[in-house]
Amino acid sequence: MHIVSLAGGIGGARFLRGLKAAAPDAEITVIGNTGDDINLYGLRICPDLDTVMYTLGGGIHEEQGWGRTGETFAVKEELAAYGVEPQWFGLGDRDFATHIVRTQMLGAGYPLSAVTRALCDRWRPGVTLLPMTDDRAETHVVIDESADGSPPRRKAIHFQEWWVRLRASVPAQAIILVGADDAKPAPGVLDAIAQADVVLLPPSNPVVSIGTILQIPGIRSALEEKTVIGVSPIVGGAPVRGMADACLTAIGVETTAQAVAELYGPSLLDGWLIAEGDETNVAGIATRPRPLIMHDVESAAEIARAALELAEELR
Amino acid sequence: MHIVSLAGGIGGARFLRGLKAAAPDAEITVIGNTGDDINLYGLRICPDLDTVMYTLGGGIHEEQGWGRTGETFAVKEELAAYGVEPQWFGLGDRDFATHIVRTQMLGAGYPLSAVTRALCDRWRPGVTLLPMTDDRAETHVVIDESADGSPPRRKAIHFQEWWVRLRASVPAQAIILVGADDAKPAPGVLDAIAQADVVLLPPSNPVVSIGTILQIPGIRSALEEKTVIGVSPIVGGAPVRGMADACLTAIGVETTAQAVAELYGPSLLDGWLIAEGDETNVAGIATRPRPLIMHDVESAAEIARAALELAEELR
Repeated sequence: MHIVSLAGGIGGARFLRGLKAAAPDAEITVIGNTGDDINLYGLRICPDLDTVMYTLGGGIHEEQGWGRTGETFAVKEELAAYGVEPQWFGLGDRDFATHIVRTQMLGAGYPLSAVTRALCDRWRPGVTLLPMTDDRAETHVVIDESADGSPPRRKAIHFQEWWVRLRASVPAQAIILVGADDAKPAPGVLDAIAQADVVLLPPSNPVVSIGTILQIPGIRSALEEKTVIGVSPIVGGAPVRGMADACLTAIGVETTAQAVAELYGPSLLDGWLIAEGDETNVAGIATRPRPLIMHDVESAAEIARAALELAEELR
Repeated sequence: MHIVSLAGGIGGARFLRGLKAAAPDAEITVIGNTGDDINLYGLRICPDLDTVMYTLGGGIHEEQGWGRTGETFAVKEELAAYGVEPQWFGLGDRDFATHIVRTQMLGAGYPLSAVTRALCDRWRPGVTLLPMTDDRAETHVVIDESADGSPPRRKAIHFQEWWVRLRASVPAQAIILVGADDAKPAPGVLDAIAQADVVLLPPSNPVVSIGTILQIPGIRSALEEKTVIGVSPIVGGAPVRGMADACLTAIGVETTAQAVAELYGPSLLDGWLIAEGDETNVAGIATRPRPLIMHDVESAAEIARAALELAEELR
């Protein structure tokens, strides 16, 4: 069986670990979000690809959900001692090595998909991990810096500055994927979708993770041809984790399983797993309530099994 | 008093620490060797400038003589886990931060002299540290890889590969400063020499440290106008530290204080400190025997004092 899953960071990675346990014989291709990627200190950092790679490859910091286990922070402390900005992004020493290798390969002319393959040669995540695109498509957030009552003073900042530095505390007036129009799906993305028996949307952020991947021209239309099962990232009117509500509010969508299902829409979504107690009614989307909290690999695997069963039922 | 000192790595840095103690009120400009600089993992590494900066700034690993005190090696271990080559060059985590800052500034268009000044803003070495040149002039070593009796198979390798990986165990057939002809002294180098009351040549490697700096067009001729005092790096027919003998042999010079004085020559050298028990007779070079082993800052300061006294005497 061929499974394609989109993925953001922590939620996507934990779901995928469950999926591997639920479907050990499946061939799984993961299309990872690269809209959050950022250049810091001259290095190219791909937070979501790395979270998936480290989680599936056994190198993740379990409690934190991102970064490496057993991490130290000598490089970061030294950069701060040099007065280098920004200091709000937390990179550990082990993690730095990944970015050094990636940056060197990109500088030598390899596309991100080839770099990701080379990094995965070490991590052996047990899936084919593809960036959504080899092109630069970067999520920026428009905020208003004016004081109360004064005329608006809008400014676009990198998603990571909004998410990590500001902790999404300043309302986003718009979320824009800069470069989206000119980006092409990375090699292998459309082929994997074409060969997929089922496509899964894990409980990643529907705006800045899944929504970003869907904006790369050609990906959404390819997915619409497939049986697509989504897992709601909203449970009881709040994100399972993270600050998806701030992103949904920015694009005028309520923080409910119903609203996210409408956002994806029946042209994309065939099946939708929601938490017990939630409700979704969208014509053309088959909805099933299930326990959606991923306490551990087994509870994530249960969700993946439910998604695959629903796909089987709908196919 | 204005003092200019050339400098290589460990020996130069330890001498300079003594010089600062011996002449606390002097204005000292150090012209550092950058012929050993190397690009590794996409980062620009300047071993000699860093050794001077860390030693005078209080960050050096004392016993080792290079690298940072309290160093850890997570990045290096991770690069090795990715299979990245070379693995023979030892970079610690703290040290990596310096190279990341340098590489980012160079990439932004700053010349090495400006980058070095920015790094020294943190380290406050108490001297003005200048690279010999902002241009790329790199020491390469010609070796013969043929088996005994077969025709020569010559190959030029980066100095660091010969020095660190091969531990200078393969005879150097030639030592070449690639790019020397087109290199210009870095901003401030010729001005500092012009204003110098005395110029010191510390007991750095006479071939690949001092000899390299002297090859940058314009530097040697400017120094020849000055009172120049050298400290012999050879004591009792052997280098005080390091493998200077392998470098001297490569250029057909004996490993004696006499031969190194002849190599520098009376057009450059006015005074020459040699170890007690050694002898040097070169017309036009005033020679003084002194204890030349730098056990600690005070013994290094004693050597620096002797050099300054000899300069005073000769001026």
